[in-house]
Amino acid sequence: MQPDLHSREHAVRTLKQFRTLSPLTHCMTNDVVQSFTANTLLALGASPAMVIEPEEARQFAALASALLINVGTLTQPRARAMRTAVEQANSAKTPWTLDPVAVGALEYRRRFCFELLTLKPAAVRGNASEILALAGEDASGRGVDATDAVATALPAAQILARQTGAIVVVTGEVDYVTDGERTLSVTGGDPLMTKVVGTGCALSAVVAASCALPGNRIENIASACGWMKQAGRIARKTCHGPGSFIPAFLDALYTLETEVAA
Amino acid sequence: MQPDLHSREHAVRTLKQFRTLSPLTHCMTNDVVQSFTANTLLALGASPAMVIEPEEARQFAALASALLINVGTLTQPRARAMRTAVEQANSAKTPWTLDPVAVGALEYRRRFCFELLTLKPAAVRGNASEILALAGEDASGRGVDATDAVATALPAAQILARQTGAIVVVTGEVDYVTDGERTLSVTGGDPLMTKVVGTGCALSAVVAASCALPGNRIENIASACGWMKQAGRIARKTCHGPGSFIPAFLDALYTLETEVAA
Amino acid sequence: MQPDLHSREHAVRTLKQFRTLSPLTHCMTNDVVQSFTANTLLALGASPAMVIEPEEARQFAALASALLINVGTLTQPRARAMRTAVEQANSAKTPWTLDPVAVGALEYRRRFCFELLTLKPAAVRGNASEILALAGEDASGRGVDATDAVATALPAAQILARQTGAIVVVTGEVDYVTDGERTLSVTGGDPLMTKVVGTGCALSAVVAASCALPGNRIENIASACGWMKQAGRIARKTCHGPGSFIPAFLDALYTLETEVAA
Repeated sequence: MQPDLHSREHAVRTLKQFRTLSPLTHCMTNDVVQSFTANTLLALGASPAMVIEPEEARQFAALASALLINVGTLTQPRARAMRTAVEQANSAKTPWTLDPVAVGALEYRRRFCFELLTLKPAAVRGNASEILALAGEDASGRGVDATDAVATALPAAQILARQTGAIVVVTGEVDYVTDGERTLSVTGGDPLMTKVVGTGCALSAVVAASCALPGNRIENIASACGWMKQAGRIARKTCHGPGSFIPAFLDALYTLETEVAA
Repeated sequence: MQPDLHSREHAVRTLKQFRTLSPLTHCMTNDVVQSFTANTLLALGASPAMVIEPEEARQFAALASALLINVGTLTQPRARAMRTAVEQANSAKTPWTLDPVAVGALEYRRRFCFELLTLKPAAVRGNASEILALAGEDASGRGVDATDAVATALPAAQILARQTGAIVVVTGEVDYVTDGERTLSVTGGDPLMTKVVGTGCALSAVVAASCALPGNRIENIASACGWMKQAGRIARKTCHGPGSFIPAFLDALYTLETEVAA
Repeated sequence: MQPDLHSREHAVRTLKQFRTLSPLTHCMTNDVVQSFTANTLLALGASPAMVIEPEEARQFAALASALLINVGTLTQPRARAMRTAVEQANSAKTPWTLDPVAVGALEYRRRFCFELLTLKPAAVRGNASEILALAGEDASGRGVDATDAVATALPAAQILARQTGAIVVVTGEVDYVTDGERTLSVTGGDPLMTKVVGTGCALSAVVAASCALPGNRIENIASACGWMKQAGRIARKTCHGPGSFIPAFLDALYTLETEVAA
């Protein structure tokens, strides 16, 4: 199955919908990227909310339009709250997305992620190492770095998608979005994005939020990947390094609509 | 009671005092905005300190010039530490400020905030939805968004101030600062501030710190609101979106003294 | 013992090594500076990973090239995880570094830091107040501010180094790096660095990562201090305040190699 190139026109239309809908996105994410994740969602027009106490997470997962579970700085109390939120999201038919940060390297989160995979995520977003690890292949994960080229992980992503029913997104130089049958590819971005903490985690939040959109989910998620890659490409042109990339990237997301159309 | 316009001259004088005093501000705030809150306080010349372990929070609340309680990512252990810190702050006559983030939407923090309101905060700072919820009115809170126009919430703010003895600050396009009798209004700012996470939370920290100043508290708090709105207006002029707004805003706070005087 | 001036040539050579080795740096640090710390390490070419759950921290401390323990927002569960990670780091001969944030002011972390000092850190990095407090002298600590001039703390740093076997780094206008016998001084930087939260904490992370380099540890650590001071000096020239200092500083770290050589 040759991946199809993702449609830029769809990305533009979908972004307009996204800004109008402004999905209320419940983020249970790691301590390192909370601010960048919230600012990314705000710049794109979504409404982020970080709610982590178990009782509140349960209540909020039902109110929210989408839920993100990111295990980057997992703790046992956080895992309990996440499990509760996922169960409630499923009851309320709120789509939820898993970001299995560094799952290849660490046993505790590996067990937790395998448990979560049985709870029917709408989407899973990871780098090549993480997706390989979730598919049960040896990923020789080294923290959050993607040491495996993304194309190598595509078959694993397709298997994982068929096993779980989730849309699986494996990201890197090229992003692949697959339901196990159809696969879309998204190009663009810039290597400097790997020198800023949280670009992958923020993408997972945007993927999660895009699951609240009506229409074809695989195309909507590919659009979400496209927005981020497009903003990365734009930011790269004006920045002087990874520090100035951050504000330039958020500015680019905020002004993206016309840029994508151009 | 028609609100009085806040005095720019008082804001300039108060900022000079604030920079000289450099209030040691104990922030017990949410995980999303810690860095931005600390940088905001530093840019204005205050000394922020984030101390959260119950024993330490108790000890530090007595050493500090002011205490901030922000319930944005409340957990049960954090709630216990906050309660301890508030009790100690009261014993030591350290003024403390409550930011009831998203209190309208979530039961657990609602109960906690109502409990805290009985412990005599010096100030409460929230958006319209939050202040309406604290005053017992239906706010249809949707996470941290302020879905109610700020003017609608002014009567609720005045009632809440009279009930609790706190200065109540309800912020939005216009900020209102009230003790239930007298009300000051503060204009300025920019809508882009709502596209950056933490501007409201950081304002609460500045409000908290301003409670350490000598003189008229309602005027001092209105000054604090004025500094933030002024910096927002300045930053808007040079930035290209919400990303570049953040550094521009901190720069503006840092160089504010002459700008306000101008 | 007159301190020797740190060698710029060594700093340039060491940075090249550092970027090639890309030390996997396990950061157990405070909630306020996580993102800035990760971005600082990434800009310099290291691989940061924030892992905090006790079982995971134990596992990761053995995989990592270096470990940082920063007590800025210590809690009891975090202290337990840190203790576990330090023990495992020692078993695996992973060098670990202690940042005793605000240790002079708060009893709970004081006891914890004294306990950690018996577990043979490779390095300790603090400001004058913190190093004085660890050496058992009255530091009249006021949160994280360094109220004592750094030169005053040098004898205490030398005593602490001899007592613990650690390289002790006391930082401020000038940084001193000492093993108790030999002392290197590092000049540069800019006072604006004190108006941005996390520059000290990020330096500790870079010091921790530099302990993974081969060669002379005291010189490697002085190089790490030198990179940060150099980047601070460069960033100061182009920024307009503490807000724009942050991206400029990260950009400067990222492009530092040629700058130091110049």
